[in-house]
Amino acid sequence: MTIPPAPAGPLSATRTVLVARICHVLETIRAERPRVHAITSPVAQPLSANGLLALGAIPSLTVFRDETPAFVEASAALLLNLGMMDGERFAAIPRAAEAACEAGKPFVLDPVFAERSPVRQALAVSLLAKTPAIAKFNTSEAQTFRPHVGASTVMVVTGAEDTITRGDNLVVLGNGHPWLAGVTATGCLLGAILAACLAVERDPFHAAIAGVSLLNIAAEQAAGRSSGPGTFAVNLIDALAALDREAIEAHFNLREYRNHAAR
Amino acid sequence: MTIPPAPAGPLSATRTVLVARICHVLETIRAERPRVHAITSPVAQPLSANGLLALGAIPSLTVFRDETPAFVEASAALLLNLGMMDGERFAAIPRAAEAACEAGKPFVLDPVFAERSPVRQALAVSLLAKTPAIAKFNTSEAQTFRPHVGASTVMVVTGAEDTITRGDNLVVLGNGHPWLAGVTATGCLLGAILAACLAVERDPFHAAIAGVSLLNIAAEQAAGRSSGPGTFAVNLIDALAALDREAIEAHFNLREYRNHAAR
Amino acid sequence: MTIPPAPAGPLSATRTVLVARICHVLETIRAERPRVHAITSPVAQPLSANGLLALGAIPSLTVFRDETPAFVEASAALLLNLGMMDGERFAAIPRAAEAACEAGKPFVLDPVFAERSPVRQALAVSLLAKTPAIAKFNTSEAQTFRPHVGASTVMVVTGAEDTITRGDNLVVLGNGHPWLAGVTATGCLLGAILAACLAVERDPFHAAIAGVSLLNIAAEQAAGRSSGPGTFAVNLIDALAALDREAIEAHFNLREYRNHAAR
Repeated sequence: MTIPPAPAGPLSATRTVLVARICHVLETIRAERPRVHAITSPVAQPLSANGLLALGAIPSLTVFRDETPAFVEASAALLLNLGMMDGERFAAIPRAAEAACEAGKPFVLDPVFAERSPVRQALAVSLLAKTPAIAKFNTSEAQTFRPHVGASTVMVVTGAEDTITRGDNLVVLGNGHPWLAGVTATGCLLGAILAACLAVERDPFHAAIAGVSLLNIAAEQAAGRSSGPGTFAVNLIDALAALDREAIEAHFNLREYRNHAAR
Repeated sequence: MTIPPAPAGPLSATRTVLVARICHVLETIRAERPRVHAITSPVAQPLSANGLLALGAIPSLTVFRDETPAFVEASAALLLNLGMMDGERFAAIPRAAEAACEAGKPFVLDPVFAERSPVRQALAVSLLAKTPAIAKFNTSEAQTFRPHVGASTVMVVTGAEDTITRGDNLVVLGNGHPWLAGVTATGCLLGAILAACLAVERDPFHAAIAGVSLLNIAAEQAAGRSSGPGTFAVNLIDALAALDREAIEAHFNLREYRNHAAR
Repeated sequence: MTIPPAPAGPLSATRTVLVARICHVLETIRAERPRVHAITSPVAQPLSANGLLALGAIPSLTVFRDETPAFVEASAALLLNLGMMDGERFAAIPRAAEAACEAGKPFVLDPVFAERSPVRQALAVSLLAKTPAIAKFNTSEAQTFRPHVGASTVMVVTGAEDTITRGDNLVVLGNGHPWLAGVTATGCLLGAILAACLAVERDPFHAAIAGVSLLNIAAEQAAGRSSGPGTFAVNLIDALAALDREAIEAHFNLREYRNHAAR
């Protein structure tokens, strides 16, 4: 958890601009308290709800097909996480995506394990066709789904480094901690945080940079106070609640940046 | 977390009587270990089960429509929480209420978000007609459902202060901590604790006073040892397990009391 | 949490052999990172997933009937836990058992509360007929199901002491801590850990000894750092991640050992 050296030359100036934008996203979430509807894996619900609350957003988690559209319409953004699918989720998720599209709410797609299950894979492909603002993958999922990601969807690929792309534009970020992989559903929490960022930052490329950075910088802060993955998961919530401009300025780790659109 | 000044005059005497009764409820739960069946939101299950165990009660959580009646009959009290409904819950909850009425078991109703969903609202109204011993609301839910609460149901309305009413009788309590609103499902945990209190205190008005006070005094104890909402949620369980007569006597914060029935 | 005296005579030599075998199981899990599919109670999912990750295994938790067989085939071992059953679980569990038998994957059966519900009891009996490698019971469940346990299934009966039997062979173990009973789903976590041990130790009798010991020694380590059941549950995950040969050698508490097969 050392402070990365300030990048030299043009990356340094970009870093300053991005830090300001990330901080603005965080402060806007805390001021506006956006409602995020998260259809997510049962195992992910407590951590995702507590992470959203710690960040400043208001979670709702209902999965029931008959109630989901009303909850989506009352929210500022939507997460569709395909982990631990069941009959209710297979019915509710397409209806939630439809409701989001009709109401003009941005949504995040996280097709957990969808490359391993034919029914889940078909659902993921059909949801990618509905233009999620952000689609989040691990390396294995990215290989399967990259051909199906449209030009207007921002792709987040997580790993030791996190890569964010939209068309030819690309950002590589270096924050995070190995314990994130040792706690269940931290990837699902990232999906929920990305949705919270979309609720206040209408450019999904910058919402993605903010969401990935907020979680990963909080993780670095939490790791320093933890003695294993159990205390880390608890301290991660405290760190999200305590995250501030100072920590983001000191620790934001920009590795690479290429944004043709911004030029 | 300062000790409130002992109320002057008649409120002081009332406070002493109520403290004794709250302590008796806590000690009876620990001695008798009542079984509480909680049909509650998926996101609320771990915290509710661990909170009940910490207090001294035995939780069961099965939602399956075909098994619920047997679990209700084997329990001393029932919680019906309408958070995160699904098809199984819509089928199981009326059967559980029926089983509780037939077996003479008291139940708590917590109609989470029911003012936002027509199907949930209709279910809540039909359950209020079955005379729950206690109905727990936040301010928004209370506005919707107050006209449907019968004279024999105790109403708990939570907020910065907590108000407990039955007909003309009223108690206002001032314990608690803002972090309770920063952790998911602490309101659902209160519903479960109210059911545990009903299991050993047959006057629902006093069961409600005990349940609200036990959780909120434990929250004050936990907050003093926590550095954010993550550690607070963990310490809340420790504080429920450690709660004793001394803490209740020192911290019980009675703001107002009007009980015609008791005169 | 005192170190038990080294058993005298033949038990001492046996203890040394068993310690080496338990350590080998732990180290193999960490080296091979086996995938464990756990169909378990909703309330148990977060703790079970985090416990498996802390130990070194990779959890998957999908319950959906149409996806379960594929996940079972991709796993090294399976847990079938009958807690909090619902329609989806009643459909998925027999298919998962079938898939495990066909693919030659060992499975653990944990028939939670099945002695209290006729439908769950019938399912448990039918699953015992499919020869689980290990069946885990508390005392009450053991009374109901002992007649249905075949000669090739290892029985684990948990309590103040834990008893492991296969036919005439028997081991009694004395590790553990009372707080395990004060946290929800620690019994379910044991089922998941038993499956992880089966994934790398093909003798289910020794897999059972390892699984029970790993969890219970970690519990002793965690209890020494905790101030109640809330912090204990968190520290238990840290302790599972930190568990090593030294702790197992110092604390493994063998009370009785009778293994005719090994003579």
